Amino acid sequence: MYKIGIVGDGYTAADLLRLLAGHDEMEVVCILSTENVGRRVDALYPQLTGFTDLVCEESNLDNLIGRCDAVFLALPHGLSAVMAMELLPAGIKCVDLGADFRLKNAALYERYYDKIHEAPELLQEAVYGLPELYREKIRGTRLVANPGCFPTGAILPLAPLLTQGLLQAEGIIVDSKSGVSGAGRTPKQSSHFCEVNEGIHPYGVGTHRHGPEIAQELGFAAGRPVEMLFTPHLVPMNRGILTTIYARVQPGVKAEAVHEVLEEKYRGESFVKILPDGVMPHTKWVYGSNILQIGIYADREKDRVILVSALDNLTKGASGQAIQNLNLMLGITEGKGLNFPGVHP
Amino acid sequence: MYKIGIVGDGYTAADLLRLLAGHDEMEVVCILSTENVGRRVDALYPQLTGFTDLVCEESNLDNLIGRCDAVFLALPHGLSAVMAMELLPAGIKCVDLGADFRLKNAALYERYYDKIHEAPELLQEAVYGLPELYREKIRGTRLVANPGCFPTGAILPLAPLLTQGLLQAEGIIVDSKSGVSGAGRTPKQSSHFCEVNEGIHPYGVGTHRHGPEIAQELGFAAGRPVEMLFTPHLVPMNRGILTTIYARVQPGVKAEAVHEVLEEKYRGESFVKILPDGVMPHTKWVYGSNILQIGIYADREKDRVILVSALDNLTKGASGQAIQNLNLMLGITEGKGLNFPGVHP
Amino acid sequence: MYKIGIVGDGYTAADLLRLLAGHDEMEVVCILSTENVGRRVDALYPQLTGFTDLVCEESNLDNLIGRCDAVFLALPHGLSAVMAMELLPAGIKCVDLGADFRLKNAALYERYYDKIHEAPELLQEAVYGLPELYREKIRGTRLVANPGCFPTGAILPLAPLLTQGLLQAEGIIVDSKSGVSGAGRTPKQSSHFCEVNEGIHPYGVGTHRHGPEIAQELGFAAGRPVEMLFTPHLVPMNRGILTTIYARVQPGVKAEAVHEVLEEKYRGESFVKILPDGVMPHTKWVYGSNILQIGIYADREKDRVILVSALDNLTKGASGQAIQNLNLMLGITEGKGLNFPGVHP
Amino acid sequence: MYKIGIVGDGYTAADLLRLLAGHDEMEVVCILSTENVGRRVDALYPQLTGFTDLVCEESNLDNLIGRCDAVFLALPHGLSAVMAMELLPAGIKCVDLGADFRLKNAALYERYYDKIHEAPELLQEAVYGLPELYREKIRGTRLVANPGCFPTGAILPLAPLLTQGLLQAEGIIVDSKSGVSGAGRTPKQSSHFCEVNEGIHPYGVGTHRHGPEIAQELGFAAGRPVEMLFTPHLVPMNRGILTTIYARVQPGVKAEAVHEVLEEKYRGESFVKILPDGVMPHTKWVYGSNILQIGIYADREKDRVILVSALDNLTKGASGQAIQNLNLMLGITEGKGLNFPGVHP
Repeated sequence: MYKIGIVGDGYTAADLLRLLAGHDEMEVVCILSTENVGRRVDALYPQLTGFTDLVCEESNLDNLIGRCDAVFLALPHGLSAVMAMELLPAGIKCVDLGADFRLKNAALYERYYDKIHEAPELLQEAVYGLPELYREKIRGTRLVANPGCFPTGAILPLAPLLTQGLLQAEGIIVDSKSGVSGAGRTPKQSSHFCEVNEGIHPYGVGTHRHGPEIAQELGFAAGRPVEMLFTPHLVPMNRGILTTIYARVQPGVKAEAVHEVLEEKYRGESFVKILPDGVMPHTKWVYGSNILQIGIYADREKDRVILVSALDNLTKGASGQAIQNLNLMLGITEGKGLNFPGVHP
Repeated sequence: MYKIGIVGDGYTAADLLRLLAGHDEMEVVCILSTENVGRRVDALYPQLTGFTDLVCEESNLDNLIGRCDAVFLALPHGLSAVMAMELLPAGIKCVDLGADFRLKNAALYERYYDKIHEAPELLQEAVYGLPELYREKIRGTRLVANPGCFPTGAILPLAPLLTQGLLQAEGIIVDSKSGVSGAGRTPKQSSHFCEVNEGIHPYGVGTHRHGPEIAQELGFAAGRPVEMLFTPHLVPMNRGILTTIYARVQPGVKAEAVHEVLEEKYRGESFVKILPDGVMPHTKWVYGSNILQIGIYADREKDRVILVSALDNLTKGASGQAIQNLNLMLGITEGKGLNFPGVHP
Repeated sequence: MYKIGIVGDGYTAADLLRLLAGHDEMEVVCILSTENVGRRVDALYPQLTGFTDLVCEESNLDNLIGRCDAVFLALPHGLSAVMAMELLPAGIKCVDLGADFRLKNAALYERYYDKIHEAPELLQEAVYGLPELYREKIRGTRLVANPGCFPTGAILPLAPLLTQGLLQAEGIIVDSKSGVSGAGRTPKQSSHFCEVNEGIHPYGVGTHRHGPEIAQELGFAAGRPVEMLFTPHLVPMNRGILTTIYARVQPGVKAEAVHEVLEEKYRGESFVKILPDGVMPHTKWVYGSNILQIGIYADREKDRVILVSALDNLTKGASGQAIQNLNLMLGITEGKGLNFPGVHP
Repeated sequence: MYKIGIVGDGYTAADLLRLLAGHDEMEVVCILSTENVGRRVDALYPQLTGFTDLVCEESNLDNLIGRCDAVFLALPHGLSAVMAMELLPAGIKCVDLGADFRLKNAALYERYYDKIHEAPELLQEAVYGLPELYREKIRGTRLVANPGCFPTGAILPLAPLLTQGLLQAEGIIVDSKSGVSGAGRTPKQSSHFCEVNEGIHPYGVGTHRHGPEIAQELGFAAGRPVEMLFTPHLVPMNRGILTTIYARVQPGVKAEAVHEVLEEKYRGESFVKILPDGVMPHTKWVYGSNILQIGIYADREKDRVILVSALDNLTKGASGQAIQNLNLMLGITEGKGLNFPGVHP
């Protein structure tokens, strides 16, 4: 039984606790907080009543070192880097659910996150935590940068196609639609019920921090820079991201090849499912699960392809994927604790 | 054209502006704010783009006296009383959308609102603004206490029945279900999207401030104290209150008399509609309108009656009723600016 | 590994499949349908992609007898009785998720369900499937009548209090609020999105079929007939039932005794949780789980008690409870496949 | 007072009745139906209680000719053409809210609507009812093809830019997100509450009928064929369409010119509003209103522009625009009955 610490008490922390309640090789031994120290976790999250007796502890290193084999860092950006710098030398493996280790380029991080990076020396060591793309590297690392929720939905459909040269690397459009839990648990007007319910709108147009993250990984996949536009929208629902991707196939490539390549790439994967021809995903079909579904529409006349992916932003888009990563890092079966379908309806 | 001031910039203020955009005898000349001074109203509420050029001004008396014939006070409790004390002597009529003048008993106010009442001498003068019950008094007053949203939905069905002695005054159950806009625009966890959407729960059980307000008015109607239990619930929708009321008829009263009495009481009213036998109201049917619908189920065997009312908490439950009141106070046709159906679906 | 059949392909069947995907002592070997014969289950319910290869088969006894150890009957009322009559003699244990065996009185069944009961001789044998009340009987039976979703939420809080004589058996009000999945998967206007979303309304006032079911069980608990009024409401959410119950304590009973009795009754139960004083349940806290939460408000002055319960209508209110029952019937650990928290947010 | 007939009793008919309740130069004298003949309109749509005493009549020409000056045809495609053929010669002006007269090319109609066009001779006479583009033609016609809801949101932002040559006519992406009322009132699984709520998904990818309609009008605006991809998505809300459009500016065109051109084109329009720089529209801001809002993001580096529009699909996307058109056709002030803001929150 591995001893696990969780740093942070927001929605991703709660989803870690939900998932780890059914994991028989990891035991959460502590949860650290800044605002809720001394409160029972099941008072914060009454859905956990009967599943945990943990009480939030102060967010400092002493509460982790010596007690944990591994730690999930579920913190606002900027805070994970400092913690990881101390935890790693103490032999504690880290999965960072925040943004600190996602961008390989510290200057880009500083531009998009308005912060000096505190541990740039760890950026090369950190492995970007998409198991379906970087499984072996994840197995061997002590530090995983868990991907952003939007990037997970954009990269998994596109990366194999760019790697194999099926798509043009220019003019890719990523139009994403997200549930509100991605905005976290702290009350603010933009996630106030009456400002969200019964409406849809875009946000962060041209400036969202997940844009450079997607571009970085697509560039790695393509072997050269990719020109891409990313626009997120807020949808009145709790969970789920639908990503609609528009791209052009390379001259001479048949549109149906797109389906074949993705089918082959993800055959055997438990958590990425290519839907049959003519079926497009629905976020309801992955609600609460660690699964990403991909639908493909290939327009032969126009040499266009439309890829649509659906995932649960808190699970495959955050906490589920984090557990999938830590399973790999600790040598546990990759899907442990994650093999269940979504809750529908 | 009467010159109107609005004090406050929350959802009830926004609904006043929506409704007054179509009112041809009232013109909003100023809106006062504390947090948004200097901002255009249509930047705060972009649904008003093209309908107003007003800019929020500082919340002080100088911005009202000499400019306004009447003022809507849409303020947190405690603040209206102080303002009304100054506005009334300056000849400005006031409709208070807050709670300061609803309870006739200052001690009860102090117990439920945790505040010393600043203008107890105005309590007897203030008229409780239910036009269907107090029309003549409202016509003659300079100060209206606009009813709470829950009380409006509970009192209108019950009062005529208590007045005419059809119902027992003990054991009345008022089980209300409200949309989230009743909680206002200030972000807080209890109205954070993800904490509300896809769930329902009660709140303020046994302690909600609208309890004594309902009891007061039912007592006036019955001519003696009424024993009543009020429980509000939060429903994942923006607007609407459904109130389910359980009461016993007096011995010897036939259950069907309930329908007759309500039908007769509200015949000719534009904003209270008794639904046909067998039809129960739906909050969607009054969405955005000033109408309250009432459905009646009379259980002959058990001498029980179930009354169900539906209203829009921001309109008949607040801003629409406030305009209805001010129309009366100013001698304008009562329904001016309010005669339109709800938006459905 | 027990071999399990499911008859029906609606939402409760889908929830059985979701839950049984994680059950290591039951294997679903067939699913029977009338409208979808020949279709893959994961085409009907794409959330199950990767979890089942089952194809819907025709709904006849030959597809069950000889293949199954036990069967879940998830059928419209009237159809289960006929099936059970044949399955039981063939040695197949049955859990009926429909209404056919819930009412002990065939005449009452015929009045509320407009059908002659086809197997009245089984009514006494059938055990009402509330494990927390009838655990031993369930262990010993071959036929369980799985309770209705509303009755589960009303009976579990009330029964122990009536049994121990704390509450008056007259004037009990059960005001329930349900998500829409309770209405099933067949499209109809009353569950058409635009007719439900952004509104709340009552339905079946005074006539809902779960009324006599609740009354029956409360009567058994009290040892005498109970006078009770049940009113359901439809809430714009997928899952969840909140039940607000109003009752009077017996003269001389202290209101706080209510908390003690329920706390003691359900201590040690995995699936019924009494919330701490001052905390009221929220359906979101049990979303997708098999747990029922109960909150208690005792009004000392008025000798009134308000009990509020929350459950997931498809899980503890249907499929989860059905599995809990079959676990007992088959001698499997009662909570097998059901021990996980709800999905929140 | 013009006498108006409405043919059809779906959601667009209901929205016509809502809007015409406040129109003092049009009076609805009859409403025709197939399924609800003999039923009161306010029994079908209780939100209209107190606003109409109309009873649905049989859907035949005799109920219109001689009684009406103008008719709104709110019918499934294929049925309007036949009716218009008879009504026009009888001197009755027609606004068709269906699809029969939108496509100028009968062959394209037949391909996308799977029907032989019954009145191809009227196709050239019919005016496409976008008043902001075709105002003078609408004034002079007796037959208006009211635009589809998606096309309204796509064409109004794009057409002026194509006409003035600012945008490339290739590679335009139109990614639309719609509320559910666009699917009409007839129950079906795709608009069943539980299949829609808490999820988002695309539909009709590559095949939706509004695709050729958008392409036709963009082609007219550009003066040559436009290569465009249209993808609609279903959002869990009643009303509203958000359209996110991706296009490239022509070489040499500065991205900021896009804002200027749209600002100038729509200055003075009551129902099209260009939002300030940096503000993107939200469908909530136009809920229930006849207004379309447009936000613009110009990416200088990439020579890309993102246009986002929001409208209410039943109002500016259907019934409101139909009234705007008929106002013009009858010589009434264009905005009569339509000058009110949206309902928010």
